[in-house]
Amino acid sequence: MSEHTGLAAPGLATADLHGSLEDPQLTSMNFLNEIAERYPDAVSFAAGRPTERFFDIDAIHDHLTRYRAFLSGERGFTEEQVRRTLCQYGRTKGIVHELVARTLAVDEGIDADPEAVVVTVGCQEAMFLVLRALRATERDVLLAVAPTYVGLTGAARLVDMPVLPVASGPAGVDLADLTATIRAARAAGLRPRACYVMPDFANPSGVRMDLATRRALLDVAAREDVLLLEDNPYGLFTGEARPLPTLKRLDAGGQVVYLGSFAKTVLPGARVGYLVADQRVRTADGRVTLLADELSKIKSMLTVNTSPIAQAVVGGALLAHGGSLRTANERQIAAYTDNRRTLLSGLARRFADVGGVSWNAPEGGYFAVVTVPFEAGTAALARSAARHGVLWTPMTWFYADGGGAHQLRLSVSSLDGGTIENGLDRLYVFITECAEVGTEGESGGLDRSQSR
Amino acid sequence: MSEHTGLAAPGLATADLHGSLEDPQLTSMNFLNEIAERYPDAVSFAAGRPTERFFDIDAIHDHLTRYRAFLSGERGFTEEQVRRTLCQYGRTKGIVHELVARTLAVDEGIDADPEAVVVTVGCQEAMFLVLRALRATERDVLLAVAPTYVGLTGAARLVDMPVLPVASGPAGVDLADLTATIRAARAAGLRPRACYVMPDFANPSGVRMDLATRRALLDVAAREDVLLLEDNPYGLFTGEARPLPTLKRLDAGGQVVYLGSFAKTVLPGARVGYLVADQRVRTADGRVTLLADELSKIKSMLTVNTSPIAQAVVGGALLAHGGSLRTANERQIAAYTDNRRTLLSGLARRFADVGGVSWNAPEGGYFAVVTVPFEAGTAALARSAARHGVLWTPMTWFYADGGGAHQLRLSVSSLDGGTIENGLDRLYVFITECAEVGTEGESGGLDRSQSR
Repeated sequence: MSEHTGLAAPGLATADLHGSLEDPQLTSMNFLNEIAERYPDAVSFAAGRPTERFFDIDAIHDHLTRYRAFLSGERGFTEEQVRRTLCQYGRTKGIVHELVARTLAVDEGIDADPEAVVVTVGCQEAMFLVLRALRATERDVLLAVAPTYVGLTGAARLVDMPVLPVASGPAGVDLADLTATIRAARAAGLRPRACYVMPDFANPSGVRMDLATRRALLDVAAREDVLLLEDNPYGLFTGEARPLPTLKRLDAGGQVVYLGSFAKTVLPGARVGYLVADQRVRTADGRVTLLADELSKIKSMLTVNTSPIAQAVVGGALLAHGGSLRTANERQIAAYTDNRRTLLSGLARRFADVGGVSWNAPEGGYFAVVTVPFEAGTAALARSAARHGVLWTPMTWFYADGGGAHQLRLSVSSLDGGTIENGLDRLYVFITECAEVGTEGESGGLDRSQSR
Repeated sequence: MSEHTGLAAPGLATADLHGSLEDPQLTSMNFLNEIAERYPDAVSFAAGRPTERFFDIDAIHDHLTRYRAFLSGERGFTEEQVRRTLCQYGRTKGIVHELVARTLAVDEGIDADPEAVVVTVGCQEAMFLVLRALRATERDVLLAVAPTYVGLTGAARLVDMPVLPVASGPAGVDLADLTATIRAARAAGLRPRACYVMPDFANPSGVRMDLATRRALLDVAAREDVLLLEDNPYGLFTGEARPLPTLKRLDAGGQVVYLGSFAKTVLPGARVGYLVADQRVRTADGRVTLLADELSKIKSMLTVNTSPIAQAVVGGALLAHGGSLRTANERQIAAYTDNRRTLLSGLARRFADVGGVSWNAPEGGYFAVVTVPFEAGTAALARSAARHGVLWTPMTWFYADGGGAHQLRLSVSSLDGGTIENGLDRLYVFITECAEVGTEGESGGLDRSQSR
């Protein structure tokens, strides 16, 4: 980073900027990036990125060309209309909404009204749009199953919306705790608007909700009048022939706003996600609109519309394989399944007899969680990087209240089998060393004050 | 729009959603879109879109290919690095920052530190990032020259930031009013953080600040300790050989945050803009960062990063023509200059002897403003569309306080000469009819309650 000596400082200080900039999770993630830069040869179980094995720039051109042919062929657009669609400002809710709806039908059995789809700049913008809409007054709060994806907490910080944690438990959400948290919030004068959940192979826990829990969660949400924000970036990545139905598919009462991402299923570089918000909204003048239309108004003030070129790349990908991303991702699904197997069998081989060490065994997604008999926080991560050349993510970073202190998240999405074995060897030495000491070592850690 | 009868309403009402959704300017712009859809054969002086004459989808492929060759050739990236750069998640501040800085040097003589550049999802996101950072407490307010670009007011609404209007006057900003407004705000316990200005051929007024005003504005900003948010989407579009220097170029004291757009100079469909924020910021722990780094943190919670594919399209365009967008836009500059000439000479031919009708004569940009001897508001626009087949934008929509009631904005950017003449013929009949009546006709207007 440069020295920044060029200009006189006009008296700005972070203390005078929005409080989100002091968010501890943001600081943690920056620390992770710094440590990854500092130890480039470390094996990283920390990066939750999709594999780069199948990236193909020629495919980007092919997708664009396929989408263009679709517009002129199947849609009957003139050349001028095709040019306008791809090059000009366009529809705020997006141009690939019908293809998105078709893919949801093909892969998930979700019957989505294309008019209820808003195509967004990644799922991150989708989360922001929903939270901005729901944070209408100082009383409005969000609930989220903890541990919680940091992108959600970040978006909430931007609209100053408190996030009340709900216990996860083995089923992915503790329904008794959810009800109790909602009622306590109401008793305190707050208005709980929605609960954020990732039912399929959650980030960071890897946990999946069983079917009975999904149905019961929908019942609780209806009874307590809160929306469910269902985020589903990983559901596709399971080797199972019959995955569980999403909440949205089970949603008879209009309780679910569905949040989708193409970062993992097409490519991160498009930065295209979407939401499905088919809830009806009464306006002040007595009309009824879709929640998607209201969220689209917020989008018009935030990013205007999602790049139609980026949408066309995704649209072209959705046109291949009969609209099935499950089919399009067969190689990825196989690679992640292999990696999870390598990880889980590798953990079993190394740690079966190590006291106090355990782990979960997700059947899909990118993540697994290891529990260790010592504090696995920032200092332990620094030691792991510096001494053992292996990176992971402290689970405590995903809790607002100090939970997860003895847990670490391992991601296998961007590794190959050999690297996973190598990383587990290093992790074994690190964990057994720390387990002997029993706490975060005071020496050998990266001094955080020197880390910039 | 569909009937939305599929799902039970879960009790949502716009009254329970964020107040930005009731923004009158948003309603106005939606009304304009509706009226444009309702009268597709009307000549539209309302659309502020760039011309579609030079759109070229093959050029998108060429730009991508050129940027890819630049990474592997000039930058020495391996094939794997190139694929990662375009396809994977990436640097939050963007990947074309150095090319953006080079173009600012070539076209504007601005010496920008590439590390101070944040590449954004259009200029709209850039405005949001700055306002989110500056709206730290309930006391923080923004100033903006009125009439004001609606995108700015929209972004401010999303962070609940009041926008205090500053008079424009013929020089583009009334400096006495600026100082008085700042001091009155401080006296009322508020903290004015910045003033938003569009010094070159502003939207909607078309007005350009003269050089003396630019220098004096910088002095006032330094003295009063407010930032200047300089938005410059139109500065390039003048036939003049020696345009005036931007505020950023004149900015010795670090007072200016520069907001840029490639929507008009490359293509809207990329949705790529940027900001330059080289102000130094003191952090709580005594470090000094760039404001750009702080804004980048907000971006990480909002859109994560700007699509590298979209950035690569823009990057490829910036690599052509030696980095000069002025050269790349020679045809566009000529087309807009022709259109302005046609508009201004056409206005003169038709309205020179019509009492109470006058107009300004911008030397660049997309817009001109006509003053008429009757109220040119929403009802007049509806009548103009329905009876005369010509659309324009009421200037009063760009004021929060009822200003501009007798003015209309004409945009010539997306028209050709023949259409401009045809539209002016229609406008002549409309204006002379209304001038005889002297006020908004009560009949013939589009009933807004029926407009959805």
